[in-house]
Amino acid sequence: MKLLRYGPKGQERPGLLDAGSVIRDLSGHVDDIAGAVLTPEGLARLAALDPSALPAVPGNPRLGPCVGRVGKFVCIGLNYADHAAETGAPIPSEPIIFNKWTSAICGPDDDIEIPRGSTRTDWEVELGIIIGTPGRYITAEDALSHVAGYCVVNDVSERDWQMNRGGTWDKGKGFDSFGPIGPWLVTPDEAGDVGRLAMWLDVDGQRMQSGSTETMIFGVAEIIAYCSQCMSLQPGDVISTGTPPGVGLGQKPPRFLRAGEVVRLGIEGLGEQTQRVVQA
Amino acid sequence: MKLLRYGPKGQERPGLLDAGSVIRDLSGHVDDIAGAVLTPEGLARLAALDPSALPAVPGNPRLGPCVGRVGKFVCIGLNYADHAAETGAPIPSEPIIFNKWTSAICGPDDDIEIPRGSTRTDWEVELGIIIGTPGRYITAEDALSHVAGYCVVNDVSERDWQMNRGGTWDKGKGFDSFGPIGPWLVTPDEAGDVGRLAMWLDVDGQRMQSGSTETMIFGVAEIIAYCSQCMSLQPGDVISTGTPPGVGLGQKPPRFLRAGEVVRLGIEGLGEQTQRVVQA
Repeated sequence: MKLLRYGPKGQERPGLLDAGSVIRDLSGHVDDIAGAVLTPEGLARLAALDPSALPAVPGNPRLGPCVGRVGKFVCIGLNYADHAAETGAPIPSEPIIFNKWTSAICGPDDDIEIPRGSTRTDWEVELGIIIGTPGRYITAEDALSHVAGYCVVNDVSERDWQMNRGGTWDKGKGFDSFGPIGPWLVTPDEAGDVGRLAMWLDVDGQRMQSGSTETMIFGVAEIIAYCSQCMSLQPGDVISTGTPPGVGLGQKPPRFLRAGEVVRLGIEGLGEQTQRVVQA
Repeated sequence: MKLLRYGPKGQERPGLLDAGSVIRDLSGHVDDIAGAVLTPEGLARLAALDPSALPAVPGNPRLGPCVGRVGKFVCIGLNYADHAAETGAPIPSEPIIFNKWTSAICGPDDDIEIPRGSTRTDWEVELGIIIGTPGRYITAEDALSHVAGYCVVNDVSERDWQMNRGGTWDKGKGFDSFGPIGPWLVTPDEAGDVGRLAMWLDVDGQRMQSGSTETMIFGVAEIIAYCSQCMSLQPGDVISTGTPPGVGLGQKPPRFLRAGEVVRLGIEGLGEQTQRVVQA
């Protein structure tokens, strides 16, 4: 299934994308794509529905974040060997964890807002994991059974606040609009081999990132198991798994986003995002 | 007002503590101490109630976290000059921000769980700010108008995961049970001068921390203004403002929590917490 949320900000309704790419309204069956709906039992109930019997949503509505009521937005840093190299950082010996504030979450095609005073706002296409089954101290062997689905994430980053303002990276990662997720939550049965998905990102039509999840240092199961050692995971938590090379910081010379530019990004089978860059 | 939440984990009901220290049930008026209830309008409606006309809660129920549906748990590091000194860190030139996962939040008297394999679980008594009025790019002059209230926080910390496992501090700060908040949300009119509150923490009856918010490097208004530059703040967000000297890591030799110990901590006017230490 491809699950989604559509409608105005803060009033999103649950939906699914049918095989003909028509959005079908799920609000007669669930209140949101969130919480218990993401557990195996919740997803099985949705999978048992006949999409053609659900109301078709007319027009071309805004898409919201593909998951609601996200409790944690966990990010993994420097998880592609070649991206670590472009930033000049050593290959991490265990996953680097940082936080993106949940207030940064937005829809896949919402505007990216450059923070006031920022000159170093950057992009990062990433594979997002959405947790379905809660747990902690999860083993790598059992980890994939905790996944509700996968999505595209743009881990938008302000490099000065991330690296030059003291303390942790969290300052530069959590501005409003820095967490577009979606367009869809794609369930594992439809996501294919998530260890081998092509991913790309363009700025104003120029290809900046082009990679594959197969160059990840720590894979999906390993990341879930690791995170669950230092936090419990709940349905609706999102873990973003790091970015391949080609971020603005890694360009020679570095290149950052400017108001008026358009960012497009996507992952094979998980859909695309398009963001206009504006000034906050 | 002293607002609180009482009852079993996950089923807490809203209440207030009356002048005679009796818990009064607010569930006939609000669904939770959370969200819009924390705005000036929401708090004014509660303040207009006659506590003696509210149902008295019998017995001695468990207290839950004093705020529900916390969206962000923001923490400020090394914000007391003498604590920075005991850890060997320089005085920060701007606030250090890190994250505590919201799944770490628990009631003020719930058990602290030592993570599996941990030998360096530590304590930190802190003043917590609870946001009432949303905003971003808030000025220091306007910052206090965004406060719904204050509370006691124990910023429980696992020092190995915080400092020796790569990446940010977030790994060591967000284990389940590492965020007791409460007993009460104390509204600003009752909290007194929050720049001059005595604070203390005992382990098994031995005084470990003894300080005052007056030695904070960055004060409450400055912290709110600073945080709001790199994130928007929403009702129910909690900002914990750093700890005075006396943490386990600063002892000579360092001393950390062991299963069976009891931690008690409090801040003048904001109440006390008592936690039993157990093994996860």
